[in-house]
Amino acid sequence: MINRFLRVRENSEQICKPLFIEDYSLQASEFVSPPKWHLAHSTWFWEEFLLTKYDINYVLYNEDFYFLFNSYYNNVGKRVLRPSRGLMSRPSVAEVYSYRKFVTEAMVRFLNTNLTEDILAIIEIGINHEEQHQELLVYDIKYILGNQPTFPVYQDSFKTKLEIQAPNFIPIKSGLYKIGHQGNSFCFDNELGIHKVYVGDFEISANLVSNRQFIDFIVADGYKNFNFWHDDGWSWINNNKIESPLYWHKIDNEWWNYTLSGLVKLDLDLPVMHLSFYEAFAYSEWKGCRLPTEFEWEIASDKFQWGQLWEWTNSAYLAYPGFSKVAGALGEYNGKFMVNQMILRGGSVATPEGHSRKTYRNFFTPNMRWQFSGLRLAK
Amino acid sequence: MINRFLRVRENSEQICKPLFIEDYSLQASEFVSPPKWHLAHSTWFWEEFLLTKYDINYVLYNEDFYFLFNSYYNNVGKRVLRPSRGLMSRPSVAEVYSYRKFVTEAMVRFLNTNLTEDILAIIEIGINHEEQHQELLVYDIKYILGNQPTFPVYQDSFKTKLEIQAPNFIPIKSGLYKIGHQGNSFCFDNELGIHKVYVGDFEISANLVSNRQFIDFIVADGYKNFNFWHDDGWSWINNNKIESPLYWHKIDNEWWNYTLSGLVKLDLDLPVMHLSFYEAFAYSEWKGCRLPTEFEWEIASDKFQWGQLWEWTNSAYLAYPGFSKVAGALGEYNGKFMVNQMILRGGSVATPEGHSRKTYRNFFTPNMRWQFSGLRLAK
Amino acid sequence: MINRFLRVRENSEQICKPLFIEDYSLQASEFVSPPKWHLAHSTWFWEEFLLTKYDINYVLYNEDFYFLFNSYYNNVGKRVLRPSRGLMSRPSVAEVYSYRKFVTEAMVRFLNTNLTEDILAIIEIGINHEEQHQELLVYDIKYILGNQPTFPVYQDSFKTKLEIQAPNFIPIKSGLYKIGHQGNSFCFDNELGIHKVYVGDFEISANLVSNRQFIDFIVADGYKNFNFWHDDGWSWINNNKIESPLYWHKIDNEWWNYTLSGLVKLDLDLPVMHLSFYEAFAYSEWKGCRLPTEFEWEIASDKFQWGQLWEWTNSAYLAYPGFSKVAGALGEYNGKFMVNQMILRGGSVATPEGHSRKTYRNFFTPNMRWQFSGLRLAK
Amino acid sequence: MINRFLRVRENSEQICKPLFIEDYSLQASEFVSPPKWHLAHSTWFWEEFLLTKYDINYVLYNEDFYFLFNSYYNNVGKRVLRPSRGLMSRPSVAEVYSYRKFVTEAMVRFLNTNLTEDILAIIEIGINHEEQHQELLVYDIKYILGNQPTFPVYQDSFKTKLEIQAPNFIPIKSGLYKIGHQGNSFCFDNELGIHKVYVGDFEISANLVSNRQFIDFIVADGYKNFNFWHDDGWSWINNNKIESPLYWHKIDNEWWNYTLSGLVKLDLDLPVMHLSFYEAFAYSEWKGCRLPTEFEWEIASDKFQWGQLWEWTNSAYLAYPGFSKVAGALGEYNGKFMVNQMILRGGSVATPEGHSRKTYRNFFTPNMRWQFSGLRLAK
Repeated sequence: MINRFLRVRENSEQICKPLFIEDYSLQASEFVSPPKWHLAHSTWFWEEFLLTKYDINYVLYNEDFYFLFNSYYNNVGKRVLRPSRGLMSRPSVAEVYSYRKFVTEAMVRFLNTNLTEDILAIIEIGINHEEQHQELLVYDIKYILGNQPTFPVYQDSFKTKLEIQAPNFIPIKSGLYKIGHQGNSFCFDNELGIHKVYVGDFEISANLVSNRQFIDFIVADGYKNFNFWHDDGWSWINNNKIESPLYWHKIDNEWWNYTLSGLVKLDLDLPVMHLSFYEAFAYSEWKGCRLPTEFEWEIASDKFQWGQLWEWTNSAYLAYPGFSKVAGALGEYNGKFMVNQMILRGGSVATPEGHSRKTYRNFFTPNMRWQFSGLRLAK
Repeated sequence: MINRFLRVRENSEQICKPLFIEDYSLQASEFVSPPKWHLAHSTWFWEEFLLTKYDINYVLYNEDFYFLFNSYYNNVGKRVLRPSRGLMSRPSVAEVYSYRKFVTEAMVRFLNTNLTEDILAIIEIGINHEEQHQELLVYDIKYILGNQPTFPVYQDSFKTKLEIQAPNFIPIKSGLYKIGHQGNSFCFDNELGIHKVYVGDFEISANLVSNRQFIDFIVADGYKNFNFWHDDGWSWINNNKIESPLYWHKIDNEWWNYTLSGLVKLDLDLPVMHLSFYEAFAYSEWKGCRLPTEFEWEIASDKFQWGQLWEWTNSAYLAYPGFSKVAGALGEYNGKFMVNQMILRGGSVATPEGHSRKTYRNFFTPNMRWQFSGLRLAK
Repeated sequence: MINRFLRVRENSEQICKPLFIEDYSLQASEFVSPPKWHLAHSTWFWEEFLLTKYDINYVLYNEDFYFLFNSYYNNVGKRVLRPSRGLMSRPSVAEVYSYRKFVTEAMVRFLNTNLTEDILAIIEIGINHEEQHQELLVYDIKYILGNQPTFPVYQDSFKTKLEIQAPNFIPIKSGLYKIGHQGNSFCFDNELGIHKVYVGDFEISANLVSNRQFIDFIVADGYKNFNFWHDDGWSWINNNKIESPLYWHKIDNEWWNYTLSGLVKLDLDLPVMHLSFYEAFAYSEWKGCRLPTEFEWEIASDKFQWGQLWEWTNSAYLAYPGFSKVAGALGEYNGKFMVNQMILRGGSVATPEGHSRKTYRNFFTPNMRWQFSGLRLAK
Repeated sequence: MINRFLRVRENSEQICKPLFIEDYSLQASEFVSPPKWHLAHSTWFWEEFLLTKYDINYVLYNEDFYFLFNSYYNNVGKRVLRPSRGLMSRPSVAEVYSYRKFVTEAMVRFLNTNLTEDILAIIEIGINHEEQHQELLVYDIKYILGNQPTFPVYQDSFKTKLEIQAPNFIPIKSGLYKIGHQGNSFCFDNELGIHKVYVGDFEISANLVSNRQFIDFIVADGYKNFNFWHDDGWSWINNNKIESPLYWHKIDNEWWNYTLSGLVKLDLDLPVMHLSFYEAFAYSEWKGCRLPTEFEWEIASDKFQWGQLWEWTNSAYLAYPGFSKVAGALGEYNGKFMVNQMILRGGSVATPEGHSRKTYRNFFTPNMRWQFSGLRLAK
């Protein structure tokens, strides 16, 4: 456990290695957090839910930090409002790293004591929480750098690769299936409530849709024909003048793509990424197919390889039967988002190894696309 | 069919009888349409989908109207943007009635000819379409009058009554149920795709929640405790300073209520109405219960009386398996809204008689509450 | 005095004669008031400042109206916020006319009693106040009708005519001039504080700029060259996509103009109207001239004919030396606007006869152009 | 000249010495620019207006910088929109300093050549331009640090001191005065157009209003009585919930003040600073006095000491008679702002030595108060 804990702490910092000091405090959009904030908030979590509660010798690193790096946990006190996260040049990056060091060391001492099952369960959540912030860090770093006029290079990592293109559609038989996380390994509360779901016959693609395939949609004026779009999606593309996936740039009639390795020519064979739900849905409509439901995806997921990109499903994020929120701040983790969000399944090249599983329920509002999201067809 | 057609046309006008000329052109909020617009748009529908298409002798009443009273049908041409509907004092109310008369008479002549099955199906849609606008007319009239400083009286109609308070919860057995409209009678496209759904054991209340019960939630500071709310709901009540259902006013420490009969003391025994999904959900959380899913509601609906108020369910509005949009403008009717909306089931005192049925899927975004909406608990 | 009072009351109603009932309650923009509101507010003024204060027998027509038709007078109590004026379909138009009748009759009885100088002074203000609302009524009616898709005709009145085109520039000698209203006749408080102003030699045009001349500016890409514009003006034309004066429409490469007589071809010989200060300034820059100051205008005004359109000057609206606000609500009339506004001098075809004079100081924010405003060059 | 140039370049960097790398890229509000941007933009100015135009050997440091650090000069090409200045973490701070060094050295070489009068005049403007950005740097640094939850200390500099409190009002005789910059020394174009202005008898205070005096206004509910405020000012304080000067914090019933030395108890004897025009005007109304005009200020300025804080006048920023814009980008410097701004006269502790003079016309929109602004009464 100590090794796993240390590895997670180390990984968060590795992700920030290629950054300049100047990059750490920037909030490029309301939905993006500065890297510094991720590093500090994932540290605060250990203070808040473990050290201050169960380690009687623990003294806070800094009272201010305890206040500043709280996130959406309404039960823990007055939060720093999200949009102002990007206005904090202080504490400095160096001090945030020193805060991390202080808490990591305190945690190591704490982990060396006798811990109850309950405490071990919270540590498991803390590790998974920090892993989630690692993935968000990658999204946010890409957004921060990718929206600057000079398109700076991060490093040559988190790359997708070609999907094998055959066989195309995998048939699945109708039946009553068991949905939800089984067994004793860790899962989030929203995966629980194992329950039966009846699913009719369907087919699901073995591969993600590629850039080449998505360009066909653009060329066919897919972004200009409302018949493929939800009413809200149509407003969204028109209000935001959206005509291609995020990070695509048409220069001299050729498609270029901002990647973590910089601005490069679009690789047509790679899976299309940075799609909103609206765009994924519109593509599937145009193609005469549809998106799978999250249940179909879970049932079929043993039949294909997944994990390059999170995959939009046509399921809204709702509670499983019997779901109930944990009391207190940890209960805010997932339950309070169960409206206005669509489910994504799978994982991405930015997901920490071992973090996801086939029952994992990721979710975003349908207009979000800075996450590493793609699209698999069903019919 | 002619009689039914004439009755529907007559009913729309009856609803507007108590209005002053001044009331007809007002758009009290972006989501509200002026009564004049409803009268004209439900007339335009007959012109657009029947007379101009199938009656070769038909000459448009007025080219401008054909343009002005189109609604959300992206396939029919450039629309008048919604928010500016309330800036049209012209055409006059008198002229809109004359437009109605002209089209009704043309339709009667048309209905007296030999009509194919296809045409009869569109007429059926037209009747249901106008009925929907009748219900919207009631909502919009209430909103227009209820937001004026003088609280004008409309008339003494569309009133709810006491729900019988026993027995409280009805138990339903788990099993695989058939969902969706069966038989040959009319239904909307979104009710089709009959399919099996597995549902676990559950209980559902025989009665809607009453004003008296809802006041308990307010008194218990339900509007001030985020643990009962979705994150989006919490933002919504705080940004809009919402502390009670719509049309409630606390005057000298007593609850008053704007009704179509004017401003009256709140009747504690009536079902609570004008709730958003967020409020219905928060109430059920506070009560230790939950909202039924739309499937549970449909399965149980034979066991209780319904129809006073539309009932929020915890189901998002999504396509049934096998759903496909009709080609062309009629296909825009329901399909394009299948995101970001929650399902309501049942009907209301403002629903035209015979318009609804147990498979009927009504839907609104979770913040809407000017519609006649209430709440039934499940567990 | 009684006759003058009755004539003013009658004129307000004459202006509304061509309206439909539907037109009276509409608020086409935040800066526009519904005609019904003008009729009621100019009536409320007599109640508030005379009848309730000096006529001990007077009983309010309606307590609600006393609240509803107050305008910007912060000293009189809680106002109806400006933007919601257009959401009041009640009281009805008929009732507003009956309110007018009631107050007019009460005033006639009051005017037949012995009145002090102080009271007569307030009556004079009341008459001038109602005249100002008559002019605003014309602006607002034009805006309400002119922004509807059917371009309804009001009536054939308030028309400008050709300006005599020679001689062009009138030279004025430098010197120390007396500025401000002199004599005992009525004027507004902002015209007082007679004071000396030194003005250098200048020349001022005998004529307003014509539509024909303004088209030259458009053709020369005047709206596209920021060198002619203030920084704020440049933002304003770009944010609002402004490429011509208000009410101009380019149809099939010809300029059409919405007038109170309907949509007609632009008459090139008439003075250009419905300009913002920004546009007037930009034109003068392009022409290598400038706008006169309000002092230059006042000094030169005996040398040319004025009164067709209000004329933008390059003077900001500021207090004259020695200006002081009247105590109480009447003091709010002019003083509180003395920032962020530019001065217009003269009068317009919509100004009631005898209302303006050469020392009259009209003012609007520099982006306003629904008023009847034009432009005279100086150098 | 070389020494003066080098001193100015050095001073800009001295001001940034106390900053952390993290502070340089932050844009705390739309009207604030990141320190990095000031350093780079004041460097770009030398490239744009001198090196690229008159030094044939000069090669741009970096083509991107030439684009990125342009400011409001519409004549020079596409600008980086102001609000996104704070989203540029790249180029790094180190690179901006190296850009400065490169350009400074190129300028030194250039200054050692034979320069025409015209070129020397542009150099003079460049020096004054960089001095203006030094003052803005101080404002922006204070705003960036003063809006962070930890109230970081900058350094103990730019401090005001006590004003001598007697004699209070200085009488000035009426007469015809000459206004505008005289002589051959440098001034901005907006100070030119020497002209005569007639001014009546007036009195002006020898001292700025102090914090102690301003607290009397707050205690007397000055922020809650609209009679002291312009209509726009009243909206501004209500919409922004303003109840004290900027950087004041009431903690446990005592006034604290964020200063460049950190959060300290308010020193009652110092001049009140960080006032908007609206607040300065309201105070003077409450006091039964008024603000001086810019002409009165200029005429009286030899009779009192000034230079601690910029002083709001009751004059709008308008062109002097005969003013004309320089052709090209340099002409955008002052002329395009001559609307919607009020004049401040004097100088502040943040003004570089020798930069201001009695004819200097500073200006801001009436709601701005992050600049070092105070208030002197007249009557």
